[in-house]
Parts: sequence; C-alpha cells; structure tokens
Amino acid sequence: MDQREGLRVTYRMAPVRGESPEQAARRIALEQTVELPDGCYPAEIEERSVGRVDEAKVLADGRWQVTVSYGTGLAPRDVPQLLNLLYGNVSLFADVEVADASLPEDIREWLQGPRFGRDGVRGLCGVETRPLLCSAAKPVGLSARALADRCEALARGGIDVVKDDHGLTDQETAPFAERVERCQDAVTRANSATGHGTLYFPNVTAPVDQVAERVAVARSAGCRGVLLSPFLMGLDALRWLAESSGMVLLSHPTFAGGLARPGHGISAEFLFGTLLRALGSDGVILINAGGRFPVPEEQALATARRLRDPALALRPALPVLGGGVAVAEIPRWIERFGRDVMFLVGGSLYAQGDLERAAQHLLATVSRAAERRP
Amino acid sequence: MDQREGLRVTYRMAPVRGESPEQAARRIALEQTVELPDGCYPAEIEERSVGRVDEAKVLADGRWQVTVSYGTGLAPRDVPQLLNLLYGNVSLFADVEVADASLPEDIREWLQGPRFGRDGVRGLCGVETRPLLCSAAKPVGLSARALADRCEALARGGIDVVKDDHGLTDQETAPFAERVERCQDAVTRANSATGHGTLYFPNVTAPVDQVAERVAVARSAGCRGVLLSPFLMGLDALRWLAESSGMVLLSHPTFAGGLARPGHGISAEFLFGTLLRALGSDGVILINAGGRFPVPEEQALATARRLRDPALALRPALPVLGGGVAVAEIPRWIERFGRDVMFLVGGSLYAQGDLERAAQHLLATVSRAAERRP
Repeated sequence: MDQREGLRVTYRMAPVRGESPEQAARRIALEQTVELPDGCYPAEIEERSVGRVDEAKVLADGRWQVTVSYGTGLAPRDVPQLLNLLYGNVSLFADVEVADASLPEDIREWLQGPRFGRDGVRGLCGVETRPLLCSAAKPVGLSARALADRCEALARGGIDVVKDDHGLTDQETAPFAERVERCQDAVTRANSATGHGTLYFPNVTAPVDQVAERVAVARSAGCRGVLLSPFLMGLDALRWLAESSGMVLLSHPTFAGGLARPGHGISAEFLFGTLLRALGSDGVILINAGGRFPVPEEQALATARRLRDPALALRPALPVLGGGVAVAEIPRWIERFGRDVMFLVGGSLYAQGDLERAAQHLLATVSRAAERRP
Repeated sequence: MDQREGLRVTYRMAPVRGESPEQAARRIALEQTVELPDGCYPAEIEERSVGRVDEAKVLADGRWQVTVSYGTGLAPRDVPQLLNLLYGNVSLFADVEVADASLPEDIREWLQGPRFGRDGVRGLCGVETRPLLCSAAKPVGLSARALADRCEALARGGIDVVKDDHGLTDQETAPFAERVERCQDAVTRANSATGHGTLYFPNVTAPVDQVAERVAVARSAGCRGVLLSPFLMGLDALRWLAESSGMVLLSHPTFAGGLARPGHGISAEFLFGTLLRALGSDGVILINAGGRFPVPEEQALATARRLRDPALALRPALPVLGGGVAVAEIPRWIERFGRDVMFLVGGSLYAQGDLERAAQHLLATVSRAAERRP
C-alpha cells in the first residue's frame, strides 16, 4: 500500500491450526484486497494494493491479534467498499472479529461525521446541560390520529424527542404522510402550550427508492430530524442522508445483532460508537445494560465513550440509552454515563397508563438527578 | 395478526433460565411487533399487530424452537421492514437464530424473485445443459486496460461469465466507466473471434446515490448483467435493481459472514438460498466446501437446493459455487451439485499463468465431466 496513513484494522481471531499469526495476517491482507494467492499478480500490485501487515501476535487469552492497513485509495469516497475492506470476505472466515479500526484523515474528511451532533441536538431542544429524554409513539396498528395523541401527551409531559417506533413505516393503519403530518402538528401544538422545544422524528427507514420522498414529506411537515435503521437500509444510507437531508439523524440498532457479536463480527464499540458517528449519526440508540437485552455495562459505556470521544476529530454524537430503561434506574445511569446522554424510555412510561403524567415524572426525576451531579 | 397467511419465522435459541419456550416465543412476538410489555396496548392491537406464536418446543439437542407468524400488512412492499420483522430487535437477544421462514404469496407477489434466473442466464450465454463457468478480472490495482486484457483472455478461453472482482469499484487505477467500456469491448471482441456468448458483469456496488448511474453506464456499454454485494449495499438494493435495472443480477456474499453464522444469525440456506433468490438474484455466489472458507458441504448443498427449489413459486436461480474452487475438483462437484450450477474459478486459473489456456482446460474438464453425468 502507499505511504499515506491507511485504514488500520485490528482483527482478533481464533488460532488456526497449521498457521502462524503472521501467516493468518498475510492471508487476511490478500483476501481483503487482491483475492489471489501470494505471487499470482504483477509485482507492482504488492505495493499498490495488498494490505500491509502491521502486527501479528498471540494475546494472553490465546486468541490471535493481527493488524492490517489498507490504502485508502482502495475505497475512494465509498462506504460499501470501506465496509468491504474492513470486514468483507474476512467475515466468511471462522471466528474473526474486527476489534477496532482507525479512520484516517482522508476518510474522516469525506465522511464528516454528525452534522448536528450532541450540541446541535441540545440547541434544537433548548436543553443545555441535563440529560435529554426520548420516547416513542407506538404501537404499530394504531391509527395516525391515535399515535399523534400519544405524541402530544409525551410532548406535553416534557419529552425532548418523540420518535416513531422503529417498526412504524407506511402501514395502512397509519400511512406515513398522514402520520407525519398529524404527529408533527400534535407536537407543535404541545410546544405552543408548554413552551418546550420538543422535536418529532418520524421513521424514514423505507425501500431504497422511497427514502428521499419520505425525508421530503418529513421536511415539509416541519420535522427537524428523522429516525433511521441503518442496518436494515445499508450503512451508506446514513452517510447519504447526513450529506443530503439537512435533518438530525437518530440511528436505531435493529438487525445489527448478527454483526455485533463478540468473537465474530464487529465490536459494538467500533460499530455503534466510532462507525455510526463517522457516518453521520447525530444520536445513536444503544442497548444499555439492565434492560431487555443481554449487554454488559462495560460495552454500553465503551460505546458511549466512542460517540463522544474528543480523540476522533468529528463532532461528538449523543448516546441514546435504550433497550428497556426503567425510570427508577435513571439516577444510577446518570452517575455512570454522565449528563451528556439521551434516555429512550418507552415501555416504562406506557406501563403507567397516563403518558403525560408519566413523562412529567420522568422529567422531574432526571432533572433532580442531574442537579445532584456536579 | 389477521387471518391471511403470514410471514412464518422459525427461530432456534439457547434455553433461557426462568422462562419456558412458550414465554420466549411470546417475548419475541411482542419485541418484533409492538415493542411493549404484554397488555400495555389497546386490546384490538393484539389481533391486528402482535406476532402469533404457532409453535414452541424443546429440540432433541436441548435448544428451543419457536415459530412466530407476522401479518404481512406489517411490512407493506417494504424489504427493510420485512428484515425487521424477520430478525430486527430479536437479533440483539443472545443466541437466537432464524432457522427458516416461509414467504407467503402476497410477499412473493411483489418481490417476484429472479427476472432471468437460471434459464435466462443459460439463454443469454447460449449454453443449454453443461455447468456454466465464471471467472473474475482482477486484482484491484491493475489499469482498466490490463483488466480488459484479462477479460479477453478468459472469454477467448470459453468462460461464460467474466465478472469484476468484487473489490473493484471506482478506484483511480481503473475508473468504473473506463473499465466497463474496455472490458465489455474486450469480451465482445473475443466473442466475435470464438463464436462464444461470453457475458461481462461489472461490479455496481457503490454509494447509494451512484448505483443508478453505474448501472446506466453498464447498460450503455452493452453489458447484460452486473455483480453486486447486497450485504454491503443493503438487501433492498437487490430488490430495487431487480425491479428497475433490466440486468442479470449476480449477488456476492461479502460482509455477510457476521449475519450468516450458526447459533446466532440467519441460516445460510435461508439467507443465501431463499431470501437472495426471492429478492431477485439470478445467480448467487455461494461459498463451497473445500476452498478457503470453512463451509460444510451440507450447507452449500442446502443453499443450492433452495436456489433451485421448485416448491418456492419463483424462477429458479443459479447457484454459483465459489470461495476457492480448484479445477481438479470440479468433476466431483458436478457429481454432488448436478449440472445446473455455475463454477466461479479465480485463483486456480490465475495460478496457471496463461489465462486463456487455463480457461480452455477448465472448459474441457467441465464438458467432459458433464457428459459423463446422465
């Protein structure tokens, strides 16, 4: 590869019988670039295209760690090809995971990261320091009118961002255009009454040839942001919407569970933290510990750190803690994650019946807990 | 869910302490639809939206198997939402895999499957019964001119489909438009000389806002088909290209390895067999046993069966056996897979140096082996 800083990927893998870590590293470097056996290509290709092995070693737990750098010219302003370099054919080997990768400047330059980020979202909501609050209009099957009522109650109660449930698309029961108009109107009405700056984010996850239209509908209804599921749509949809939509982008992790598995896949902190931020998520819904999903607290903390890490020269994004956050636990989560987060609370509000009162109670709880924290 | 035939998904999972298989099934049915605890929604939503548990049992190996049906109205002509129903949030649970799913008629109706399929590809190549042959122009880093020379040699040697290597996109070394024109011209020239009907398939995997243009360039250069990597692009890109491109679509499995893992993920035979066919792949590159990747032969056979299975009321697709197919092994693979396959042979030809002669030898080997098989 050429001499500029490359895409440096650290893989961890199960030991392979009959191979050394160095040989495994070389095998990966070839598989991910020339896809030919050693030497079955002209000599100049070695320097120009083949991944460079930077490190190959045995870890304390017996697994191998190998680091390979790829020339960024192999993925010219191209997210699908970036994913291919990162974890393309190598994903089809057994027990190989991407532990981490460093995104060099010339990739960061065109990805650009969040266009609003943490500070932009805070500005739009008019909330400077306390943790932000998010909830969802749900469930699928309700009419647009009933969903709008729920948006209004949540907004009146002081929720900062009311989003569509991620399974709401364009079902007959609440067609997209009607739903977006009714829900945004309901939130605007609530804001007029309360003076809050609640935002409504409709779900624009859609067939690839309909996404632009959904965003346009959301924009003309007055929405400032949208929800999307990049793993359902393809990760490049996120980059594209960041470049073209002018909207705050909130990313949902649905469908990512096959990819973000320890041992084989892409590490949660790189995938949900570094990569979703670099691709342009202003907020990333991440599964917190203690909820419905089996996530260790350390993983959620590490992902949140990546989203806000000043070492990555892009705007910080907002960690949105979800996956079953109980209102009663929130003071403890503020201790752990700090105030620069958004809490996504769904079922725990719905279980209380009166959404507006439940939201008010949540807001009071969060405000008190945040004040106690320096 | 309503009374029509639904999307019926069979999950297999590790037993969960403190839960019965029935409770786990109900938990999945709620998570995938209303995302609310039991009862925290109006009564009519139960019938309208919540997944219906059809089966919950303990398998002989101790794992649980649960089958849940989702009303197809939840995913109206919408592939991302179909994926969300199939394996959305449930992918974030531990150790849950989609073993299989049945695509009901009203989903098949709009997905439509392959537009050319096995017979269409055979017709375009002018090869009625023997196995088809595919190879790749590679490696990345060569000029468009050098890649075109390789296409010409492979076409002269009798390869039926010459495709771009899947890592060739729009790199400076061989820009897309120049490469496509030169490679298609080279193949056309070879066809004039030999009388073969070799096709050239460029790789249109690209940023989401550039795919349509790449396809247009390929079409105007005279290409009849393209290569794409649906797992890098998002699976809906495949459906969209099948609907809109008029091209033969050859799907590559890169990046799918995180998703297609036994124990957690989507079973290879459903993902690469049923789903890629239903979404519109005319040919699916699948990793064969005995090559560079650790795939059991039974898995490759099961995937190939799904691609051609007459029980799925869609055109049969062509299994394209790749992942390190050695020329010498081909007679054995014909015994196993039958003649209705395409062999993707790359490194094994390149290792011989003279591509045209290597291809001729491959064609002769395959023709002889196919004749011996009734």
